Amino acid sequence: MVEQQPAIVLQAKGKIEIETRPVPKIEDPHYVKLQIKKTGICGSDIHYYKEGAIGNFVVKEPMILGHESSGVVVEVGEKVTRVRPGDRVAIEPGIPSRYSDETKEGRYNLCPHMRFASTPPVDGTLAKYYLAPEDFLVKLPDHVSLEEGALVEPMSVGVHCNKLAEIKYGQKVVVFGAGPVGLLTGSVSRAFGASEVVYVDVFANKLELSGEFGGTQVVNSSKFKNEDEIVDEIKRVLGGNEPEVVFECSGAEICVRSGIKVCKAGGCYVQVGMGKDDVNFPLSAIGPKELRVLGSFRYCSGDYRDSVKLLAEKKVNVRPLVTHRFKFEDARKAYDFNIGHASEVIKTIIDGPQ
Amino acid sequence: MVEQQPAIVLQAKGKIEIETRPVPKIEDPHYVKLQIKKTGICGSDIHYYKEGAIGNFVVKEPMILGHESSGVVVEVGEKVTRVRPGDRVAIEPGIPSRYSDETKEGRYNLCPHMRFASTPPVDGTLAKYYLAPEDFLVKLPDHVSLEEGALVEPMSVGVHCNKLAEIKYGQKVVVFGAGPVGLLTGSVSRAFGASEVVYVDVFANKLELSGEFGGTQVVNSSKFKNEDEIVDEIKRVLGGNEPEVVFECSGAEICVRSGIKVCKAGGCYVQVGMGKDDVNFPLSAIGPKELRVLGSFRYCSGDYRDSVKLLAEKKVNVRPLVTHRFKFEDARKAYDFNIGHASEVIKTIIDGPQ
Amino acid sequence: MVEQQPAIVLQAKGKIEIETRPVPKIEDPHYVKLQIKKTGICGSDIHYYKEGAIGNFVVKEPMILGHESSGVVVEVGEKVTRVRPGDRVAIEPGIPSRYSDETKEGRYNLCPHMRFASTPPVDGTLAKYYLAPEDFLVKLPDHVSLEEGALVEPMSVGVHCNKLAEIKYGQKVVVFGAGPVGLLTGSVSRAFGASEVVYVDVFANKLELSGEFGGTQVVNSSKFKNEDEIVDEIKRVLGGNEPEVVFECSGAEICVRSGIKVCKAGGCYVQVGMGKDDVNFPLSAIGPKELRVLGSFRYCSGDYRDSVKLLAEKKVNVRPLVTHRFKFEDARKAYDFNIGHASEVIKTIIDGPQ
Amino acid sequence: MVEQQPAIVLQAKGKIEIETRPVPKIEDPHYVKLQIKKTGICGSDIHYYKEGAIGNFVVKEPMILGHESSGVVVEVGEKVTRVRPGDRVAIEPGIPSRYSDETKEGRYNLCPHMRFASTPPVDGTLAKYYLAPEDFLVKLPDHVSLEEGALVEPMSVGVHCNKLAEIKYGQKVVVFGAGPVGLLTGSVSRAFGASEVVYVDVFANKLELSGEFGGTQVVNSSKFKNEDEIVDEIKRVLGGNEPEVVFECSGAEICVRSGIKVCKAGGCYVQVGMGKDDVNFPLSAIGPKELRVLGSFRYCSGDYRDSVKLLAEKKVNVRPLVTHRFKFEDARKAYDFNIGHASEVIKTIIDGPQ
Repeated sequence: MVEQQPAIVLQAKGKIEIETRPVPKIEDPHYVKLQIKKTGICGSDIHYYKEGAIGNFVVKEPMILGHESSGVVVEVGEKVTRVRPGDRVAIEPGIPSRYSDETKEGRYNLCPHMRFASTPPVDGTLAKYYLAPEDFLVKLPDHVSLEEGALVEPMSVGVHCNKLAEIKYGQKVVVFGAGPVGLLTGSVSRAFGASEVVYVDVFANKLELSGEFGGTQVVNSSKFKNEDEIVDEIKRVLGGNEPEVVFECSGAEICVRSGIKVCKAGGCYVQVGMGKDDVNFPLSAIGPKELRVLGSFRYCSGDYRDSVKLLAEKKVNVRPLVTHRFKFEDARKAYDFNIGHASEVIKTIIDGPQ
Repeated sequence: MVEQQPAIVLQAKGKIEIETRPVPKIEDPHYVKLQIKKTGICGSDIHYYKEGAIGNFVVKEPMILGHESSGVVVEVGEKVTRVRPGDRVAIEPGIPSRYSDETKEGRYNLCPHMRFASTPPVDGTLAKYYLAPEDFLVKLPDHVSLEEGALVEPMSVGVHCNKLAEIKYGQKVVVFGAGPVGLLTGSVSRAFGASEVVYVDVFANKLELSGEFGGTQVVNSSKFKNEDEIVDEIKRVLGGNEPEVVFECSGAEICVRSGIKVCKAGGCYVQVGMGKDDVNFPLSAIGPKELRVLGSFRYCSGDYRDSVKLLAEKKVNVRPLVTHRFKFEDARKAYDFNIGHASEVIKTIIDGPQ
Repeated sequence: MVEQQPAIVLQAKGKIEIETRPVPKIEDPHYVKLQIKKTGICGSDIHYYKEGAIGNFVVKEPMILGHESSGVVVEVGEKVTRVRPGDRVAIEPGIPSRYSDETKEGRYNLCPHMRFASTPPVDGTLAKYYLAPEDFLVKLPDHVSLEEGALVEPMSVGVHCNKLAEIKYGQKVVVFGAGPVGLLTGSVSRAFGASEVVYVDVFANKLELSGEFGGTQVVNSSKFKNEDEIVDEIKRVLGGNEPEVVFECSGAEICVRSGIKVCKAGGCYVQVGMGKDDVNFPLSAIGPKELRVLGSFRYCSGDYRDSVKLLAEKKVNVRPLVTHRFKFEDARKAYDFNIGHASEVIKTIIDGPQ
Repeated sequence: MVEQQPAIVLQAKGKIEIETRPVPKIEDPHYVKLQIKKTGICGSDIHYYKEGAIGNFVVKEPMILGHESSGVVVEVGEKVTRVRPGDRVAIEPGIPSRYSDETKEGRYNLCPHMRFASTPPVDGTLAKYYLAPEDFLVKLPDHVSLEEGALVEPMSVGVHCNKLAEIKYGQKVVVFGAGPVGLLTGSVSRAFGASEVVYVDVFANKLELSGEFGGTQVVNSSKFKNEDEIVDEIKRVLGGNEPEVVFECSGAEICVRSGIKVCKAGGCYVQVGMGKDDVNFPLSAIGPKELRVLGSFRYCSGDYRDSVKLLAEKKVNVRPLVTHRFKFEDARKAYDFNIGHASEVIKTIIDGPQ
């Protein structure tokens, strides 16, 4: 008889239920069976819940939610050598093809055959047990909690975009959007050597938190009439200087425009956040400044490892991000609460089932 | 008594006259006095003539036009070692500060103290004699003509943007806009190792010429209704593939949009042409593909040298670009002709005065 | 009953025999069964034959020889999509772990779990049939022969080291050692944009061939007394210039020393050939010139693809490399001939069994 | 009448005297007149004193010593905009040609026309007044002392080699040689993101100091019989791991050999120290590991600025380096003391004249 487990399932747009699903069994000898312990709620999960789709990814069949998870190893395939039962791990949720050019060229995040947890039609992590290949797990040291482990997912987005920007010692960085990804991105910039990180957001409560995330200055953009005023204010708080690197984590058009305009000649602007498909973009500004405008997508080999290392060395403190916690059986409430309290919530964690 | 010379002067918007100006004298021992022989008409000169300004650069005082020039050395400063009287040279028209960080960090094209010929308020090259520092001259081998030497300027724009794109052997390239810069950019891509270069333009006569400039396929974008059709056609002529590199040399919004959308994941899009300040930009497309969108500005150390080398080795043939020639005393006619025959003219050359 | 096939087996140092071995069967659905058609003899095979070992790799059990092979697809696993029966392919002989950091970071040639054909204890390709994963095969276009396909292996060594050196248009290159790898390396340099390639060797017959492999100048180092004279001669044939890039493909100490000394400040020296473990090395020369001295090892993702593309585009002509051909049943003779005629042989090809 | 000043002059090998020299006058409008305040004794000065030459640089005429200096601005040329009288500054001692390719390509440390203080025949800084161009001065913030400012010179060597190595977050670094340059190099590695820095030296007193310079582990190489034991010990203190980056700052052959052997596959070894011209070098080790072996030479644009910033942010503490101080009039004693107490001295500072 097949063993059963509870799972948080998005049955269709607007409909989350706890279903009973079979416990998965290890078939591939490189795979590991994990008991899920902590899972963060991501904006994309919310988006699927509210809209039933993100771009071309449409929820057509019921899908288990969740992809920001940590867990404990309960069983390992026969070729597994890196973890063993009892190990506490952060779980990387996207598994690429092992055979694609992208994977073998060091950019598996671009693999067209990627199977990413809780991206239709791939089930997510919000169940009791979950299977993952051993090389997509990173062990947590004793002094790093499982809750911190769940936050390795958004943190790795921050690590990845900092690597793309090739952050160097002494640089001045501006981060637009002080949500979880923005705050983690700025924190990582500091750990990677940036001297100043200016956070720009419209919510005073998020900006207040930013000092714990490497922020050295803040700009509350709600106080300014237009992009030029925001640009001027950023330069002002930077002592008359322009930033070498801009991370745009909000997706808002005014932030995109301000970010391009404020970025120093020869500098780098990274688009981390997703907004609407088309924006009114100051394209003529990138030529004479020879800006590098980079798209950044998820994370790749080494990013999870570096995130855990940053936590282990206490270079980044993710704990203040967690503003709310829910039990597994209250998962639907957790999603509804997130939707209803968008400005107040930074990160919500759902416990694994008992 | 000061020696006098004729010069082509833009006195104000819409007003070009031949004026008499003093012949410049060598004061800096690293400088060289040149007799100007051939000068190409650049779109920016036309723009100043028609509009009196480009962005913040406004023609407030009469200014000598011209910056795409070759000439012959007639006198050298006492510290000059690289050229001597009689040498035929291509003349790099922008001289940066020697003291700026940008110059010393290898990016003098970004130097904020740049003095660029025929960019207000700096006089251009369209006179009998002109001064330039010896390190901004590149000697032309005997088998490279002075007319080719004048074309080194737009060619260096093509060399520079290819270097930024880090063109590699075997890549597939799309060039939007088959004007002089576009055609030279694609030619350089081939010389740098690209296997295919697709030219996209609305003018059949320019596309017909593209085979002499490394073009392997063409797309006449006037035949397609929208960007998605253009994208599909580009993929079709590339055998179902997407290009790793896109050079946007037209500045047209539909080309910008098509270029971003057609570019392969992990690829590079370079904005070479200048269009309107703001465009409706498909920003959401750059994230999941992790595109590098690069601004490219003029040229920098080594680009002129490489252009002349490409000519010397016959890797690029610039001659078919020259569609019209005028005498020095007919310079105003030359500008007016260029304005009146935009689709027909590719490059117009003005002779130096006798 | 298991089907049987002939195989060229190195039973022990100095002892090659044709053995009967079972025909391998596809078990992994990503694998392909190939009939081996052409195989080049590599110096490493010769080394195992003569010495029984290369460094830590010791022939302890009988091992099938061969790793420079092309073949025809005869059967495909059920998940194979890129090739089908009848396809003619070049076969990449080293399969890394799909789970190692090195592989996922784009450097599978450094994977510590690499299984490389005819490197003890892994069997090589010199049998009738051979299994390989589909993503380590590159289809040969109709106009590229199977013999050329066998030469893709050493050619990919040349492609790889040129990529490491980041060869750029216009550069001057020196190649020490005009054996197969050296000649292919220089050929690739030209295809990647180098303007001049100087070949240095002691054998006049190899240097004479070098014009077919992109060589623009030659230096017969047997005519010079010491490294300083070789350095001077290289500069002389380069018109008084130093090369930006040096590929050392001989492993000889005098070439190593000459290469380091002749390389231009800011330039790149790549060690491609293997010589003795320790050399008397002019270390003090690399500091003030800030040389990059790079180790290069085999090839990595994309190199085989680019080699086949270079052949397809006729940018490199490998045919003149093949100086000798043997039938499968004469394989032992082929090895013995190679040993006895080292200066005369460039590349020997062994046919597949009928 | 020409104003006179005292200067520390190396008259010939073994002969240092205080001479009276004319006070220099500003002729170039970009230049600044400085009163020298603190000067560190560098190993190269000692070498010129003891040997009269370093390689091709031979002391043929009396030469003022010193190049690790800080000072106070006393007068500025008419085009100077970045400093003014009274400013305390670190003084970069090597001025390249403004016209060379190397300078304009961002590598002025490789400029063949470099004029470097106290490198024959160029006078050094050990006088009362000294001239330098404004762009080779970096202002010291109030809380950074002039003594720290003198140490910016060796520190910039450390900054430069760390940039060449492209140090990344989380890396493990080994530094051979715990002298001033070694200790500063390791300190900078930590500031640039390295997680571990292992110092290797034969002097226990230097290793004891290393904890103040970012050291996380030490290896006293005097306790080991040979390079293999040193390699094993380094791996042991790194928990069984190999370092991604090695800085060889000692010039000793056994360190060179150990460094190459211990460096991780895909890693980077930087030669910072100068030893004898030729070393017995384990060349065969760099191929299969694809090591990058880099020469590093002095410093370049931005390095001085970053050093001062590291001091200002207290990311590096140079103070413990200064073990001895001498008055200007005791300069000869200072040099003699350094020679006589090599193992005991780390850095000696000579005061400027009153």
